[in-house]
Amino acid sequence: MTQPLFERTAIIGIGLIGSSLARALREHKLSARIVIADQNADHRAKALELGLADDAFATAADAVRDADIVILAVPIGANGGIAEAIGPALKPGCIVTDVGSVKQAVLRDVAPHLPSSVAFVPGHPIAGTEHSGPESGFAALFSGRWTILTPEEKTDPDAVKRIRLMWERIGAKVELMDAAHHDRVLAITSHLPHLIAYTIVGTAADLETDTQSEVIKYSAGGFRDFTRIAASDPVMWRDIFLNNREAVLEIAQRLTEDLTALQKAIRRGDGEMLLTMFTRMQEIRRSLITVSKS
Amino acid sequence: MTQPLFERTAIIGIGLIGSSLARALREHKLSARIVIADQNADHRAKALELGLADDAFATAADAVRDADIVILAVPIGANGGIAEAIGPALKPGCIVTDVGSVKQAVLRDVAPHLPSSVAFVPGHPIAGTEHSGPESGFAALFSGRWTILTPEEKTDPDAVKRIRLMWERIGAKVELMDAAHHDRVLAITSHLPHLIAYTIVGTAADLETDTQSEVIKYSAGGFRDFTRIAASDPVMWRDIFLNNREAVLEIAQRLTEDLTALQKAIRRGDGEMLLTMFTRMQEIRRSLITVSKS
Repeated sequence: MTQPLFERTAIIGIGLIGSSLARALREHKLSARIVIADQNADHRAKALELGLADDAFATAADAVRDADIVILAVPIGANGGIAEAIGPALKPGCIVTDVGSVKQAVLRDVAPHLPSSVAFVPGHPIAGTEHSGPESGFAALFSGRWTILTPEEKTDPDAVKRIRLMWERIGAKVELMDAAHHDRVLAITSHLPHLIAYTIVGTAADLETDTQSEVIKYSAGGFRDFTRIAASDPVMWRDIFLNNREAVLEIAQRLTEDLTALQKAIRRGDGEMLLTMFTRMQEIRRSLITVSKS
Repeated sequence: MTQPLFERTAIIGIGLIGSSLARALREHKLSARIVIADQNADHRAKALELGLADDAFATAADAVRDADIVILAVPIGANGGIAEAIGPALKPGCIVTDVGSVKQAVLRDVAPHLPSSVAFVPGHPIAGTEHSGPESGFAALFSGRWTILTPEEKTDPDAVKRIRLMWERIGAKVELMDAAHHDRVLAITSHLPHLIAYTIVGTAADLETDTQSEVIKYSAGGFRDFTRIAASDPVMWRDIFLNNREAVLEIAQRLTEDLTALQKAIRRGDGEMLLTMFTRMQEIRRSLITVSKS
């Protein structure tokens, strides 16, 4: 039997991602002990009942004592307060990581509160479902998916290596990236599509009621996907948009300009322009597929 | 053995939908003979090679002679010219139908060219893939999917009944609807999502090249779906937007207003407003699911 990677893992927040990580760490025997913190008593009880943790605490500061790894799995806006609370309680040599969808904000909010004896390795598993809560997690959530790590240059390479190893052991593919670059890429691959999905579902909801029910009935694929996306956790997404504000607004602005150009072409009945644009999109799709396969 | 529903079916246009219909009619033995017309010689040869038709013609007028049903399966913009060409060649008692995604424009373009002895039953199977051409079709494409028929009040009820029966026999669920209402519902369930997909892929394509390749690499679900949608046939979609202009522009305008409101909330850091909106979307999604199950 191989040695566990960690003696004591503390997971702060036992929602979809936190509980999936707990399950994966258990399944792959990566931590001798797992403790959790969650301010929601029902979630704590559920996590213990599901055997996701050996112990459950109401406050993060209590959970992190003696932990050699602390995983922050809370909405992005909560990280700063938690870092401030746990800073003094962290064991020297401990590694802190997170799972947030925005990385510059996490570096900004968390790093200043951690003692110099503690390494911070920000992480972002690109995986999820539209469900929330400890019962919605599953061990295979990260399998075959990317996890992006965005450590600073000064970060202890051994700490980065251990976090990478943890993700790889539970089946994820790992890539290192600059935090700013991460936030820009995710703004278009994830944050903007979510913003659009929220918008389009809201637009549909404002239609008269009879149209509304038909909208779902006759939606093949497209719109139904939008509503699935729009069902995601509201607090998590509020925090993502507030904390990746610049990148999201810049890309949303570009999208609005491009949409306006298309609307104008439709209004003017400019079939040639539409055909040129749509043909270009088809070619782009083909080149993107080539890129993703290479 | 049951009697075939039709003696001679003429399918005009042997792309994804036309070839899927040919396959489905064959499989369910609904037509004694199937002939096709397609201006593309390769498509005609392919259709004969695949056994989709007993005969293939370069012009629609040649294909429709003696047909008791004519199915127009071409991009919406081509219907008017075809109707004009086939009008004099149609057999009295023949039924003409189509498969276009916009119904008011088809009524406007096709109906005036048909003799009074011919019934026109506009139809729209809500099914498709992002692939095109005769080899991309399959018999089960319409199985379990909705087909909406939008006949005028004056249309011969027997003709409507036969077209309904044809769709039901190949596995589709059929609903009758007013053409204007159809166009409005589809503007939001299908046309707007496509417009957005085209836009977002174009926006991504204008990013610098290194970001572009990462956009596909790290896109989990959301963006990848957009690129798939944007790979659809450019001519078909040009015609849809040009022919459902008013409904698409109206709904796109509403979307733009809603998106602007969200952008403003993000810019101002108005977390409360974002949370309220996102929570509302989540509730809407739940109510939409309830509607679709009822």
